[in-house]
Amino acid sequence: MESAATLNDWPLVQLSRAFTPTAASIPDQKALKRVHVETSQINLTPLNPVSFLIRAANIYPNKLAVAHPFTDSPVFYSYGQLAQRSVNLAHALQKISNIKPGDRVAVLAPNCPMILEAHFGVPAARAILNPINSRLSPQDISYVLEHSGSKLLLVDHSLLSQVQGLPLIKEGKCQLIISKDSGSSNDCAYERYLEEGRRLSGEEGWMKLTLESDENAPMALCYTSGTTGRPKGVVTTYRGSYLGSISNVIEGRLNTDGDSVYLWTLPMFHASGWTYPWAVTAAFGTHLLLRQIDYEHIWRAFSVYNVTHYCAAPTVQIGIVNHEKARRIVGRRINAIIAASAPTATLLESLENLGIDIAHVYGLTETYGPLTRGYSYPSWRELDAKGRSVQMSRQGQNYVTADEVRVVRVEKEEDGRVHAKLPLEDVPRDGITIGEIVMRGNLVMMEYYNNPEATKEAFAGGWFHSGDLAVRHPNGAIAIADRSKDIIISGGENVSSLEVESALSGHEDVLEAYAVARSDIRWGERPMAFKWKGREREFEELLKEYSKKVLAGYKRPHWIEVVDALPKTSTGKIQKFVLRGWAADRNRASVGGNKAKL
Amino acid sequence: MESAATLNDWPLVQLSRAFTPTAASIPDQKALKRVHVETSQINLTPLNPVSFLIRAANIYPNKLAVAHPFTDSPVFYSYGQLAQRSVNLAHALQKISNIKPGDRVAVLAPNCPMILEAHFGVPAARAILNPINSRLSPQDISYVLEHSGSKLLLVDHSLLSQVQGLPLIKEGKCQLIISKDSGSSNDCAYERYLEEGRRLSGEEGWMKLTLESDENAPMALCYTSGTTGRPKGVVTTYRGSYLGSISNVIEGRLNTDGDSVYLWTLPMFHASGWTYPWAVTAAFGTHLLLRQIDYEHIWRAFSVYNVTHYCAAPTVQIGIVNHEKARRIVGRRINAIIAASAPTATLLESLENLGIDIAHVYGLTETYGPLTRGYSYPSWRELDAKGRSVQMSRQGQNYVTADEVRVVRVEKEEDGRVHAKLPLEDVPRDGITIGEIVMRGNLVMMEYYNNPEATKEAFAGGWFHSGDLAVRHPNGAIAIADRSKDIIISGGENVSSLEVESALSGHEDVLEAYAVARSDIRWGERPMAFKWKGREREFEELLKEYSKKVLAGYKRPHWIEVVDALPKTSTGKIQKFVLRGWAADRNRASVGGNKAKL
Repeated sequence: MESAATLNDWPLVQLSRAFTPTAASIPDQKALKRVHVETSQINLTPLNPVSFLIRAANIYPNKLAVAHPFTDSPVFYSYGQLAQRSVNLAHALQKISNIKPGDRVAVLAPNCPMILEAHFGVPAARAILNPINSRLSPQDISYVLEHSGSKLLLVDHSLLSQVQGLPLIKEGKCQLIISKDSGSSNDCAYERYLEEGRRLSGEEGWMKLTLESDENAPMALCYTSGTTGRPKGVVTTYRGSYLGSISNVIEGRLNTDGDSVYLWTLPMFHASGWTYPWAVTAAFGTHLLLRQIDYEHIWRAFSVYNVTHYCAAPTVQIGIVNHEKARRIVGRRINAIIAASAPTATLLESLENLGIDIAHVYGLTETYGPLTRGYSYPSWRELDAKGRSVQMSRQGQNYVTADEVRVVRVEKEEDGRVHAKLPLEDVPRDGITIGEIVMRGNLVMMEYYNNPEATKEAFAGGWFHSGDLAVRHPNGAIAIADRSKDIIISGGENVSSLEVESALSGHEDVLEAYAVARSDIRWGERPMAFKWKGREREFEELLKEYSKKVLAGYKRPHWIEVVDALPKTSTGKIQKFVLRGWAADRNRASVGGNKAKL
Repeated sequence: MESAATLNDWPLVQLSRAFTPTAASIPDQKALKRVHVETSQINLTPLNPVSFLIRAANIYPNKLAVAHPFTDSPVFYSYGQLAQRSVNLAHALQKISNIKPGDRVAVLAPNCPMILEAHFGVPAARAILNPINSRLSPQDISYVLEHSGSKLLLVDHSLLSQVQGLPLIKEGKCQLIISKDSGSSNDCAYERYLEEGRRLSGEEGWMKLTLESDENAPMALCYTSGTTGRPKGVVTTYRGSYLGSISNVIEGRLNTDGDSVYLWTLPMFHASGWTYPWAVTAAFGTHLLLRQIDYEHIWRAFSVYNVTHYCAAPTVQIGIVNHEKARRIVGRRINAIIAASAPTATLLESLENLGIDIAHVYGLTETYGPLTRGYSYPSWRELDAKGRSVQMSRQGQNYVTADEVRVVRVEKEEDGRVHAKLPLEDVPRDGITIGEIVMRGNLVMMEYYNNPEATKEAFAGGWFHSGDLAVRHPNGAIAIADRSKDIIISGGENVSSLEVESALSGHEDVLEAYAVARSDIRWGERPMAFKWKGREREFEELLKEYSKKVLAGYKRPHWIEVVDALPKTSTGKIQKFVLRGWAADRNRASVGGNKAKL
């Protein structure tokens, strides 16, 4: 017989002695002894990412699941504790708040234990998780809560001011549970909510839960940030979340010996953290939480907390390499996922020199986060950083659990937007012909919530239309050219606004420049560029000269304007529809001028 | 635009210059350009492991998929070629042999390209693959072919003599396609069959296939070796095979950067090679084929072919470490999976010193091969090899895509066999109480083919009954004690025959010893041991004395007999039912003797 001591043989905190948890944080073994849930037929279990937590709590109850050191009251939870807290949340939702299967439960929080627990506790209660972007305005938050019909909102104290004045909160239509993020029930309603959930469920809480029996049922509802119009609610399923997690374990190279430490630079409210709440758990990894991007903390995490994996956009990657504490990591390499756009040669080289290996991925909220990866080839090893960054800039091909991603021929419709032509026809693999990226398969969302028109439009022809334009290279890799609504069609030729912007950015005095279509009598459209201030106005002409060196004639911006401020969304995305409005204004203001210039 | 040269940028053979393939082996890109198959709803694709090959051929058409060097005519195929050959096989089955969805197609071969291709081509034709154990007698092969109703048999030339005299072959009830395993159509009917399949399908063969739309449909039919009675046909599904493969990618630590080289020591006819034909392909790994266990070849594979992974039973592992060419692998470590039973301390230490890391797994044909793994704990690092081997001897807990494995209380029924008590009740986690291992979930078979009685019995109480007896340790790990029919019940106490055998094997002069129950008037049953010859007869008394040192009284063999030969199955498993028959014979022969001895 084994001694009880071996139960605790995973050192609870391998990371730092400074944060060794107290005995109080050792999970209650008794309640976790028999963590299995009756949901299965003999040979058919509905796929459900909650199963990854059940398994982690069974196999490694004492392994560090959650580290939350960069906060006023650091907390550390083992997998036993994370499971217990999640099941407490599920019971609290059901027994205190009367949440029924299919009800929506919203969460508004930076990366903290509560939002991670919500990713397990809410589906464990068969409710639908609605993570809300913390950068939204109170009006937008109100819209999301109203549209999702969320009955309850879990909110972090730091974001309380965003919601406490909202009518639907004040009227009690949506219950509010506030977390102080302290891990203590003295000052934290969320902690008391969990405790009460546990008290009401008694021992062996897992045994009293019935997990969802339909793997195609909705599990989460994430609203797109919406560069135009109202946000749309992306409904994702249990099956898709499970299979997306599996891909992220494999493609993200998480290891299942429990040695992975995942740093949460990515906000968990973004497309449910790209399924990483479940993927990291499937790999018995440690969730190292960051409430916000802080490069001091990130470098502390790298050097002290043995981070092995993180995901971040290029902006954050740049902040990481440029930080004063940046230094080569010794004795291991970090696997970083870069999304949104690819690293420049300089950034790639800086990251590699610091010991950080990059994989470039691509996806959308509608595809459970990333579903393609720029798969590498041995021949890349012989390329310099610039050559590698060119190869790596491509979005690549489908993840292991995703279906093949296609690029199909497009046409410009009456509304001026570029759409995939029906029936769908693949573009040649020539690296030149621009088409629209379309996807289907298990990693495509179920639908837009309560929006059948938008769903129908997005699913035209039996495939999901990404709205991203791309070329396909001879080796099959897709490479994004533009958003479909941003493409400029000049004299019948497609001009990628991204290509124009990328070319202009090559000039040393250009920090940010964006190109949009401006209507033109002769060419239909021609590119117009807006550049964020910088130098005096004469620079516009200098930049036009410069563009002659770097762009083909029809791709050059015919107009360039320096502006004091660029229109952006709450998440920092450029709002090109505003720039297009400006371009139209300029046309109206200079009637005839357009013609005179020809 | 990318030059065509980059299409070939994966060096086709990274392994050895001696085996660089000729230009003729470069796959036909044209036919593979558009490898996608219309099987999916927009957001629901039936899980199907054939998708892993489609994806590998799309992403890495030139990467080495198959290396078959240890044969008279070595061949090497890229992923493009493997896909093309598999699709050719699918078309040949449909168009030449009129194979319809659901028809059974058998394969009888050692590890060679044909049996690997059958794992893709047969399901691509929506037929059911029936891999036959090559060690079966002609009569048993005939039984399997008859019972499965296979319409066609793909057979390797080396096994032709086993089948060519069978009536159902001679009568043409089962078509025979013979492979000379030469890769050349000059002398090989199988190669001509593939070529004809390709000719009949024309270009873009993939586009003309319709993959199975029901992921719960049967995909393979593997017969258990059957230590008693007739073999039973285990029906497995597309979904189970897909999810089993995913687990083996993750748990087997295959990496998806394409650097994995999997050595096929495990016969592919064993439970469809434990899903590794699909798992290795999902990871873009290289299948390095071995027609039979040959330690010279294995060590050549380790040293020259950069093997990173293999699976083998302890017997083979012992052969590996004891071979004269065994030497420490430099610059990398090999991940080896050990199944059937755990390594001894000596074996473990020898493997580790050679650079081979071991993971111990457990499963059955009915569970798609392994579905538990002995997960390791950091504290093991402080143990010596003996301590680690004790920990590692446990079968552990469930794989990532498997449901929790339980150990439930048992009772002895009238037929003398030990069965799980209904309703199922977990044994305590004390490391002592013996119960039966039961499983359910996606990695449990669909049914026994055409055998509803056996299926019903195996699924009693809503769980699959493994027939293996085990204890459960406080940390949740299961540890096998015995097969249920082999347990010896003496004076109401369960005596594990494995424990008796393991104790006797500790004696330096014991090479092989087996313990079975022999009926006894006073105790009901007592252990009787049969030892494979060795020394003179007096050794029986010496061994009895030895057993007093290593076994509790009621566990000691009351009778020991030295025999010249032990009864074994074609796969080398001991046939305990024969030994029990011998024990009963001895009782009959010595009426009263039993009593006199008390």
